[in-house]
Amino acid sequence: MRAVAPNGLTTPSSFPNAMIPTKNLPTPSIRRLPGYLRLLKAARARGERVTSCTRIAEELGQQSVQVRKDLSVTGVSGRPKVGYSIDELIDAIQDFLGWNRKTNAFLVGAGNLGAAIINYQGFAEHGLNIVGVFDSNPALFGSSIKGHKVMPVDDMLGCAKMLNGYDIMVEMGVITAPASAAQTVANQLVEVGVRAIWNYAPAVLELPDYVLCENVKLSESFALLTSQMKNRA
Amino acid sequence: MRAVAPNGLTTPSSFPNAMIPTKNLPTPSIRRLPGYLRLLKAARARGERVTSCTRIAEELGQQSVQVRKDLSVTGVSGRPKVGYSIDELIDAIQDFLGWNRKTNAFLVGAGNLGAAIINYQGFAEHGLNIVGVFDSNPALFGSSIKGHKVMPVDDMLGCAKMLNGYDIMVEMGVITAPASAAQTVANQLVEVGVRAIWNYAPAVLELPDYVLCENVKLSESFALLTSQMKNRA
Repeated sequence: MRAVAPNGLTTPSSFPNAMIPTKNLPTPSIRRLPGYLRLLKAARARGERVTSCTRIAEELGQQSVQVRKDLSVTGVSGRPKVGYSIDELIDAIQDFLGWNRKTNAFLVGAGNLGAAIINYQGFAEHGLNIVGVFDSNPALFGSSIKGHKVMPVDDMLGCAKMLNGYDIMVEMGVITAPASAAQTVANQLVEVGVRAIWNYAPAVLELPDYVLCENVKLSESFALLTSQMKNRA
Repeated sequence: MRAVAPNGLTTPSSFPNAMIPTKNLPTPSIRRLPGYLRLLKAARARGERVTSCTRIAEELGQQSVQVRKDLSVTGVSGRPKVGYSIDELIDAIQDFLGWNRKTNAFLVGAGNLGAAIINYQGFAEHGLNIVGVFDSNPALFGSSIKGHKVMPVDDMLGCAKMLNGYDIMVEMGVITAPASAAQTVANQLVEVGVRAIWNYAPAVLELPDYVLCENVKLSESFALLTSQMKNRA
C-alpha cells in the first residue's frame, strides 16, 4: 500500500499517481464555493433547511445562472419547486473541496502570520490540521502557539519520520517564512514528502512537478486596491 | 480645496470625484505587476541596468508577449535592441500602482494577522502607511505593535478628526477583525472618511458606492489547493 521514497520516508499509496496530470478543474467556480458554503452554514445556523440559486444569488449580488453552474460542479442538483437541501449542499461542497477530511500540515515560520493561520478557526474547519510548527529563530524554539511547540526547522525531516511511524503522513506545507528563506524551506518540505505547498512568501518557488503549489499573493490584492484609488483620485 | 462631509470631517478635494465610475483597469495585468516589480528590484540590487520582456518572461515562466502587454499598461516602452531601463520600469510600475506615494490607513483588529500586516516591510515599501491601530478588546489597549499603541475602536472617529487638524487624511481602512465584527468596523471606517477598504475578514461588506473594497479571500486560495489535492489523490 505504501511506497518508500529515496529519503526513507514512506509515502501514501497515492504518491505514484501524483504524476498524472490534474484534470482541468473549474477554477472560477472553485473560488466562489467557499462564499456559498459560508452563506449556507449561516442559513443552517438560523434553522433554514432549503434554499435556491435565486436566493443565494440575491444575497451575494451575483447572477442566479452563475450560482447554478458553480453548484453543479459539486454534482448536487436542486429539486424543481423545492430547491436545494442546505445539508446536502454543504456536504457536497465540502466533499468537492476536500474539506470534509483532515489535511495534515507542517507550518514553517512561527511569526505573526504563522500564528494567525494556526489560530484561525476557519481553516481548521476546512480540515487544515497543523501537526508541526517550525522556525529557524532559536529565540522561538519551545515557545507555544495554540498548543504547538515551535521546533527548529532542521528537525522537520526527523519529525516527519517520527509521525510516519504512527502512519501519520504530512501532506501539506504552509510557508509563512520570509521570501529569502522560502526556497530552502520548500526544498525541506519536499524532502518531508508533502504533495502540496501553501506559500505565503512573496517568492516564486521551484518545485517538482508532483508537488502542487498555491501562492497567496497579498501584494496583488493591495495593487488592485491602490491602482483603483489612484485612478479615481 | 476641501469638502466638509456630514460628519464634520474634512475630506480630500478628490472626494466628490469618487462618484465618477472607475474606468476599466486591466485587472489580470495589474495582478502580475507586483511580481515584475519584485524581479526588477532584485535585478537592480545585483547591479543590472537594462532588461527585456524575454528575460522577464524566462525568469517567471511566462510568455514574452504577455509580459510586453502587461508592461505597456504602465505607459513605458522598451527601446529596440536595448530593452527597458530597469530604473524607468520600476518607476513606471510603482507610479501606475500608486505605490510611489504614501497611503494613510487605519488598521482595525490588532491580533496576529493585524500585527503581521503592520510588521511586513513589503507593504510599507508599497506605500501603506499605518497611522492608527484599533481593537475592541480592552486587554490590548495601550499595547504596542511596531510603535503603534492599540486604541479602542470607538476612538477611531476622534483620532481621524485629530489627524484632519494636521491635514492628514485617512484614505484606507484595513480590516483584520473577525467576520462577526467586520460590517460594524466597515461602517465606522466609512464615517471616518476612508475611500478604500482592504478587507481580510471573510464577510461580504455593504458599502457606499464611492468606497472601494478589496476582499482578501484566503479560503479561496485554500480551496484551490485542497480541491486539486483531492482530484489527484
